[in-house]
Parts: sequence; C-alpha cells; structure tokens
Amino acid sequence: MTLPPEFSLIARHFRPLAGPGALDLTDDAAVLAPPPGRELVLAADAMVAGIHFLPDDPPETIGRKLLRTNLSDLAAMGATPLGYLMTVALPRGLPEGWLAAYAGGLADDQREFGIVLLGGDTVSTPGPISLSLTILGHVAPGAALRRDGARPGDEIWVSGSIGDGTLGLGVLQGHFPADAGGFLADRYRLPRPRLGLGLALAGLARAAMDVSDGLVQDLGHLCRAGGCGAVLRAAQVPLSAEARALLRAEPALLARILTGGDDYELLFAAAPEDAGGVRARAVACGVAVSRIGHFVPGEAVVTVRDGAGAPLDPGQGGWSHF
Amino acid sequence: MTLPPEFSLIARHFRPLAGPGALDLTDDAAVLAPPPGRELVLAADAMVAGIHFLPDDPPETIGRKLLRTNLSDLAAMGATPLGYLMTVALPRGLPEGWLAAYAGGLADDQREFGIVLLGGDTVSTPGPISLSLTILGHVAPGAALRRDGARPGDEIWVSGSIGDGTLGLGVLQGHFPADAGGFLADRYRLPRPRLGLGLALAGLARAAMDVSDGLVQDLGHLCRAGGCGAVLRAAQVPLSAEARALLRAEPALLARILTGGDDYELLFAAAPEDAGGVRARAVACGVAVSRIGHFVPGEAVVTVRDGAGAPLDPGQGGWSHF
Repeated sequence: MTLPPEFSLIARHFRPLAGPGALDLTDDAAVLAPPPGRELVLAADAMVAGIHFLPDDPPETIGRKLLRTNLSDLAAMGATPLGYLMTVALPRGLPEGWLAAYAGGLADDQREFGIVLLGGDTVSTPGPISLSLTILGHVAPGAALRRDGARPGDEIWVSGSIGDGTLGLGVLQGHFPADAGGFLADRYRLPRPRLGLGLALAGLARAAMDVSDGLVQDLGHLCRAGGCGAVLRAAQVPLSAEARALLRAEPALLARILTGGDDYELLFAAAPEDAGGVRARAVACGVAVSRIGHFVPGEAVVTVRDGAGAPLDPGQGGWSHF
Repeated sequence: MTLPPEFSLIARHFRPLAGPGALDLTDDAAVLAPPPGRELVLAADAMVAGIHFLPDDPPETIGRKLLRTNLSDLAAMGATPLGYLMTVALPRGLPEGWLAAYAGGLADDQREFGIVLLGGDTVSTPGPISLSLTILGHVAPGAALRRDGARPGDEIWVSGSIGDGTLGLGVLQGHFPADAGGFLADRYRLPRPRLGLGLALAGLARAAMDVSDGLVQDLGHLCRAGGCGAVLRAAQVPLSAEARALLRAEPALLARILTGGDDYELLFAAAPEDAGGVRARAVACGVAVSRIGHFVPGEAVVTVRDGAGAPLDPGQGGWSHF
C-alpha cells in the first residue's frame, strides 16, 4: 500500500519546518512543555486568496504574511513567540512549486523570528486557497499588554508608518503608480511585527493593540475597551516618503490611509509623563514611534482633526468582511 | 462610527462561547495559565464544505464535527481537553441563522466536553465555508500516547465500530438505503471522541491513534511508526447492526468499511498479556473494544485476512485530498 499524495507533500514541504514537539508531524498532535512560570498567549488568524492576499502574490510572501499577522498579535500583547499550528486548504492541481515556495518563505521567517511549526492539517478545497494559523507565545504572569487600559489624558502612540499596506494593495491593483523601490507593495505583502517594541513596552503602555483593520477603527476599539474617547491628529500620523508622495498627488487618499488597514503597527496608550521612556525604549528597539493624539473623557468616539485643528471625516472607514 | 457587521456577529454568536482566558474575544490574543506541571497537547484540523461535510448538513452538527475530530486527536494522545481557537471563513450572504445554529451546536459540545473557546477569526470567502480549529489539551509529562510504540506480537485493538461514518456519508448521498433510526448519518455527522478511553489507556496502550482516514491506511501509520507489519482480521472488525445489514445486502461494501474513514475510533496496540487490563478499563469507560489482529515482524505492510485466513485486497483505500 502506498501512501496518498498528501502525506508526501506534507513530508517534503512541512516536515522540515517542524520543531521538536511536533513529533515530525506524524502523530495525532504535538506535545509541548510550556515554559515554566509563564502564561500562554494564543491567537488565530485566517487568510483567504482574493480577500487577504492577491491570488498572484508570490507564494513565498503568502505564508510569511499569515505568520506575521499572527506575530503582530503577539507583539500587541507583549508576548514572546513560541510556535504555531497551521491548516492549509488548497485547490487540487495547485503546482507543487507553489507549496515549495510557500513553505520556503515560512522557513525564512521561522529563522528570523525563532519559532517552529508544531502541527496542522493539509486538505483540498474546491474554492480559493484558505489558510489558518494559530500562534502560541508566552508572557510573565499578568504582564500581557491589554486593550482596556487607556484613560483620558493618555497619549496615543503608533509605531512605524501608517497607510503603506493599503496603498501597496492599491499599487498592486493598478490604482496608484508604483514607487520605484516597490516599498509599498512590499509592505502590503510583508508586515513587520513589532515584537521587540511590544516586549519593551511592558510596564509603560497602558493599553495596546495592533493596527490591522484601519487606524481609526482600531483606535475606536481602544476607546471602547477603555471607556473614553480619542482625538486623532491626522497631521501627526507618521507617513512613509512613498505614502507622502502619493498623498501630495491625491490629497483625498488621506481617508484611505487612516482607515485602510493592513498596517500591523502597534497602537498604544501611555501617560504623558512616560513619553520620554517610550521614546527611549523605541530607540533601543530601532523602531520609530509617533504621538498622534490623546484620549479624552466621554463616549467612545474617535475625532479626527487636521493640522489646523478642524474636524476631518475619514468616512465609515475600517475593513469589514460582511 | 459604528462597528462593521462582523463584530456584531462575533459578539452575538461567538462571545457566549468564550472562556475566561479569551478576554471576551475583544483583545488581540487569549491569555491562559497552563495547568502547572503538565505538558500541552496541540492539534489542528481544517474542514471545507463539500469535502469534510455536506453543504446541507445541519449547521448544528458542523461545528460539533469540527470540534469532535479535534477532540478525537486529543483522545488518541490520552490528553484532557482544555480549550480551542477557531477560524471561520464564510460566504457573504450566509443567513445569520446558519451561524446561530453553528454556534449553538458548539455551545452544546462545550458543555458536554468541558471546554471553552479561547479565540479565533471570522472572515469572508468567495468560496465554500472553510473552518479551522486548533485544540489544546494537557497530559502528565511523558505520558502522551504515541504512534510509535507498536512491536511484533502486540495485539491490535479498536474501539466502538468501524465503517459507520463512511456508510453514513453514502446514505446521505443516496447511495445506500437509510437505516430507520438514522444511526449511520448521525455517525457521519457527529463523531464520538473516545476521550475517557484515551485517558484510561495510559500505561497500557503501546501505541495509539484515531481512525480518520480509514482503518487500513491508519493501521499502516502505526506500522511505519513502529517499524513492523500488521495482520488485520476482517471478520473481527467490529460492525454496528446497521453496517452489518448493509454489508449483508452488498458484500463488496467490506472494502469501503475498512478503508472509508470518518470513524474517529481509537486504534491501539497492546501486549497480549495486557488484554484483560484493556478490557477492564474499556468496560469502566463504557466503550466497546475489539481485538482485530496483531503486529508482525517485517515491512510496514498491512495484510488483511478474511474469516478463513485468506488474504483480502481492500484496494488502495484511505482518503486522500490530492
């Protein structure tokens, strides 16, 4: 009796990614001794071709994007990554080279982030490629960064730059001219999870999350969780040179930048007296951070103001699946 | 700013399933203190409409099947369930009643198995419903049942009855007449994870796995992991009264019964001198167990023999996705 083809696909492409607890991906489950005295941090994200990535994105980047969006969730909790389980639903007839490149991208990122594959499932689908990944990390007991600590008077901070992911998607879809270096498309395809910054913010950030569905919508989540409102100063939102160039040519893009999502930057609250500490730790991590507004008493409403202080309406904003 | 519809769907249908560590499904990740002094056991399974379940299966049973196939993996490791993360990719326009029934089925099973939802993701898909679930369990250090301990001379045991799931699928597809009680269709839709038996086999079973891809193929996995062959006595494979009735009418169904999969019974190896202990523990769990053959020296080949000892060819057998 020969084994069905899925077992050889798993053996060739996924077994090399497996860590010690994965039992070579040949048992029913993985066995893992959790780090003693630590709490587990667990998150899961799904990605579907045509929704979360473009069907013709390079397969090398697709697995990495899936892994990095999950790592970004760990970053937002101030957690250290441990490993992951992944399920892939693939159309029959997908060239094996696609799977090899997909797994190769994951191997690169496993080395970069120091994690291993623990288990998963490979199945066929009559629909588009559908991926799901569950990530495990760990934190000191009680030390996880949470969304619910923002208080009126706290300052709003964000890492890196905002809007590059959604503008990169627009570039790939032919809506905007591409930048010469391919920076924006790269940021759409390969988020930078801010793991070091997440760890460094322990004890300083009062609330934190990662920006995945759009800055304005996600800031609204911090407001609801904290029971306060927020004033977002659009002119202080950090933009890359490439985003600024597109915005100069088409000022209406500001709404897309503020609401488009796919940023995977850290959005967090800190007391004004901790601003120096935040900056020092960010410098130590090599990550830029910017103050973009502050939390205010009252309803969980995000008010966006322009450089002159006048209110701006970024529209409904924020990605919705339904 | 109002929240997009997916947040209200999650709040209405999935938040009631969430356990303490899930932070109401409103944070970036779950935080969980692992049971002190225990090892974690982790498995993930995906299910796609039209592949793993029928698109018109009752939604109440679909989530339960997904959960139970994962619980069956924990049973095969002798692990105690803890909780799960789940991602769902749903077509836009799916009636909300579908989601309510899906979540309602999960709620029933959470009570039955004493577990909670820890986190996940809800996204849209242009394809069929695609589900993925990662389950967490725990075992005493070193106590997990593994696949690789079968040795020549060990007896092959299986729990419950074999073939009901694949015959139930055939009934639902109109290939066979339905039994009056709907037993076979029910077994296709609602596997019975043998968690109690898995726990009870600690220290007795030398190797174990659950039968998901077909008895013959899965027995081959135990052979490869153990470095031995197996003789499977078809006449000793336990069948339900409903399966026996179909088999009497169509003897060729034996091959399907032995290779069809969707059984989610425990398949395990035990030394002959432990047969009494295995039976006693199974009785204590209220689960039937049957001896269906033995492991032999040599290549990892499964030989199937009929009641008279003559070799039977069940065909290539075993489910393959590709």
